[in-house]
Amino acid sequence: MTPDEFRRHGKSVVDWIADYYEKIEALPVVSRVSPGDIRASLPERPPLQGEPFEKILEDVGNLILPGITHWQSPNFFAFFPANASGPAILGDLLSSGFGVQGMLWMTSPACTELETLVLDWLVEMLGLPEKFRSSGDGGGVIQDTASSASLCALLAARERATQFVSNEKGCDGKLVAYASSQAHSSIEKGVKIAGLGKQNLRVIAVDRNFAMRPGDLARAIDNDRREGLVPCFVCATVGTTSSNAMDPLAEIGRICREKGVWFHVDAAMSGTAAICPEFRHFQDGLELADSYCFNPHKWMFTNFDCDCFYVADRNALIRTLSILPEYLLNEATKSGAVVDYRDWHIPLGRRFRSLKLWFVIRHYGVEGLRHHVRRHVALAQEFASWVSEDDRFELAAPAPLNLVCFRHRGGDARNEELMDRLNKSGDLYLTHTKLDDRFTLRFCVAQTATEEMHVRRAWERIQEETEKLA
Amino acid sequence: MTPDEFRRHGKSVVDWIADYYEKIEALPVVSRVSPGDIRASLPERPPLQGEPFEKILEDVGNLILPGITHWQSPNFFAFFPANASGPAILGDLLSSGFGVQGMLWMTSPACTELETLVLDWLVEMLGLPEKFRSSGDGGGVIQDTASSASLCALLAARERATQFVSNEKGCDGKLVAYASSQAHSSIEKGVKIAGLGKQNLRVIAVDRNFAMRPGDLARAIDNDRREGLVPCFVCATVGTTSSNAMDPLAEIGRICREKGVWFHVDAAMSGTAAICPEFRHFQDGLELADSYCFNPHKWMFTNFDCDCFYVADRNALIRTLSILPEYLLNEATKSGAVVDYRDWHIPLGRRFRSLKLWFVIRHYGVEGLRHHVRRHVALAQEFASWVSEDDRFELAAPAPLNLVCFRHRGGDARNEELMDRLNKSGDLYLTHTKLDDRFTLRFCVAQTATEEMHVRRAWERIQEETEKLA
Repeated sequence: MTPDEFRRHGKSVVDWIADYYEKIEALPVVSRVSPGDIRASLPERPPLQGEPFEKILEDVGNLILPGITHWQSPNFFAFFPANASGPAILGDLLSSGFGVQGMLWMTSPACTELETLVLDWLVEMLGLPEKFRSSGDGGGVIQDTASSASLCALLAARERATQFVSNEKGCDGKLVAYASSQAHSSIEKGVKIAGLGKQNLRVIAVDRNFAMRPGDLARAIDNDRREGLVPCFVCATVGTTSSNAMDPLAEIGRICREKGVWFHVDAAMSGTAAICPEFRHFQDGLELADSYCFNPHKWMFTNFDCDCFYVADRNALIRTLSILPEYLLNEATKSGAVVDYRDWHIPLGRRFRSLKLWFVIRHYGVEGLRHHVRRHVALAQEFASWVSEDDRFELAAPAPLNLVCFRHRGGDARNEELMDRLNKSGDLYLTHTKLDDRFTLRFCVAQTATEEMHVRRAWERIQEETEKLA
Repeated sequence: MTPDEFRRHGKSVVDWIADYYEKIEALPVVSRVSPGDIRASLPERPPLQGEPFEKILEDVGNLILPGITHWQSPNFFAFFPANASGPAILGDLLSSGFGVQGMLWMTSPACTELETLVLDWLVEMLGLPEKFRSSGDGGGVIQDTASSASLCALLAARERATQFVSNEKGCDGKLVAYASSQAHSSIEKGVKIAGLGKQNLRVIAVDRNFAMRPGDLARAIDNDRREGLVPCFVCATVGTTSSNAMDPLAEIGRICREKGVWFHVDAAMSGTAAICPEFRHFQDGLELADSYCFNPHKWMFTNFDCDCFYVADRNALIRTLSILPEYLLNEATKSGAVVDYRDWHIPLGRRFRSLKLWFVIRHYGVEGLRHHVRRHVALAQEFASWVSEDDRFELAAPAPLNLVCFRHRGGDARNEELMDRLNKSGDLYLTHTKLDDRFTLRFCVAQTATEEMHVRRAWERIQEETEKLA
């Protein structure tokens, strides 16, 4: 494809996406296809000869679109979102266009230096501890997801606890990690990947608000030490996936400091809220953390994938993950004057992901981002107030920010049926969890284009379907 | 940003990229900035108010471009490439535009089903073993990089060897992995991450062509078993990073079968060559492998990141990496009729990466892809013939495909200086390795736009600088 053809086809793709966003609100949020439908509509064998670009783009509309669940719809209230925005998409387009691979500083200095800068910007924007800035012993890096970031934190914790002997000799079944029963599933996955074993993940109980009980954590660590085990890693959460519960970071952090255990904080979803000073209290105690992550690809209008991961001591991380074969050696690396981000995560290669984040921050400005976050929180709080004023429903957990957990008082089956009917209607998409072992609906307001009318309409539809079920 | 603003700004970004590709050949391939230059040119603090898009895009040209090393330049012969193409960039743009997160089939059925289809297409296109097709017990998935894919293979191998006890109880220091001294650095990194420990990675010696010695592998496995250790994973390479050496898959595979060890094949770079039937013999024996990966983001014109990872027994992989919290439960998953790719890799979230690969395959067609691969191999072979006809130089290793390893006969310092002068000239970019402990230049022909004139000009420049140094 020549540059001129790229010009022409590129503009038709831009128009295609703009058209998509113009009509997205009218599309059923959840795809209605059955398993196998999309594949059955596509040729079973690859084409021998090239095809015209127009035909490929036409097939996107005819054959792929029906199989899309519209995460960017303003009526998407499911899971945690993966929101996006024009500037993010276009920053990402430039990243694809440059096609640089930023494994080393020298393989594109701008890829590394813009990333370091933007991650330093975010320290200021979110009121994060100064120790996470690159100017001291710490620093930030972009990873794909919080799953990967938490795994890297766990690996660095594992090595610090064993004076880097695990990397050399392997795990010995004695290392122990700790997280609440409400921590993200990626913590258990990470504990398995890192060779600790699921039996060595202590699941700490939570209080009635689904936040970790610090006393239980302290006792568990002491018990394990008495047994000759090696506590190495504690993960606390700012905004759990089930119910947006807030673990008490300050108390947990003090315990970790006292007992010399690595303290990781996972704020994948709710970390973005800290851009508003009034929501920063949820991260009180973060100054005690060894590592931290949050996902601009969830609530900061930056399309997937983009997780920001910070460490207080970058050397612990780098020493854990560093490999330097001859074919990657270069003057800049040898000088020690540069950051080579390949040592900060699992993959070697890396995309120029800071471009999209830089575009988003500059397009919105800090005040613009605050405006949208406040708007989402206000809408969720309004939704929560409607729920609590309706006798048929109850709130199932505190709603500190933009996630509302609620349920119909009629029992699990009623709630599940209500959810299915709503999702099948195509008018909105919400998902569920279990809290206190009861089926609970989750309503998360964080989509870029969600306005009051969408939230209001969603509540009307919930009421309508509830009446039909009565 | 409204859809109409997106239309306008998007088209200016498309034009920006087209302009970039029109002038890329004239830009110095390696960025000339010094450490800190790029950051120093950017504001130290984030903007409070949003900025006009035009201003941001202008800054990309003025402030970011000088810090780019041009991986997409036809004069890029360094490392292994990360090539791209118009259809890939535009497929990726659509993926950003949709902004779907394909962790589960139901979170966008098209994201899962197109991926499965395209990975099945590649089985046919590359002549891969039928067992890697999704219709049997195996299947393929897109990962970010071969580093991650090889780690997942190692984890599944670890679990198969311990009947999934490692996941539960952790590693015990007895598991052993095997790779040649020329295997990619990610294998050592993976062995550390997975808790085996570097001491439990046996580095198998290579022959004079830098290919693994199967006899040494067999002896190492037997020795370890005698010592009470548990051999679990062998990695062979189709096209090593240093010199594009080809491990003898058939012999290695037979040993793995006989001894019951997981056999992983890493063909990150050279796997693409198998699209041409005449190059398929390098993967003879692949039918004995348990897992396989190659990177369309290296040599198949699909922009980073895109690694295709196949397993013969998907259940081993899924059982190793599966986590199913309540908030991800849904009817489709419970039915068992669908693939949920979140269980096939480390991250939970996933981007719609098959779109760009589908665009590339359809745009070029199988014959088009073959044409470009053959062209690259022919150009590299021509370059190798020029080297071998010049008495001042020697080939340092066989050049089976598109990588030529060579050196000036004047010793390490002469070669290093030659490389530095060439790279600093901006006319081309090549990198080095060490073979037989000697500094060796690597010249890889795989950039999408590289034509004979670029290779010829590179050789002229190498000769010119050699004369200056004489």
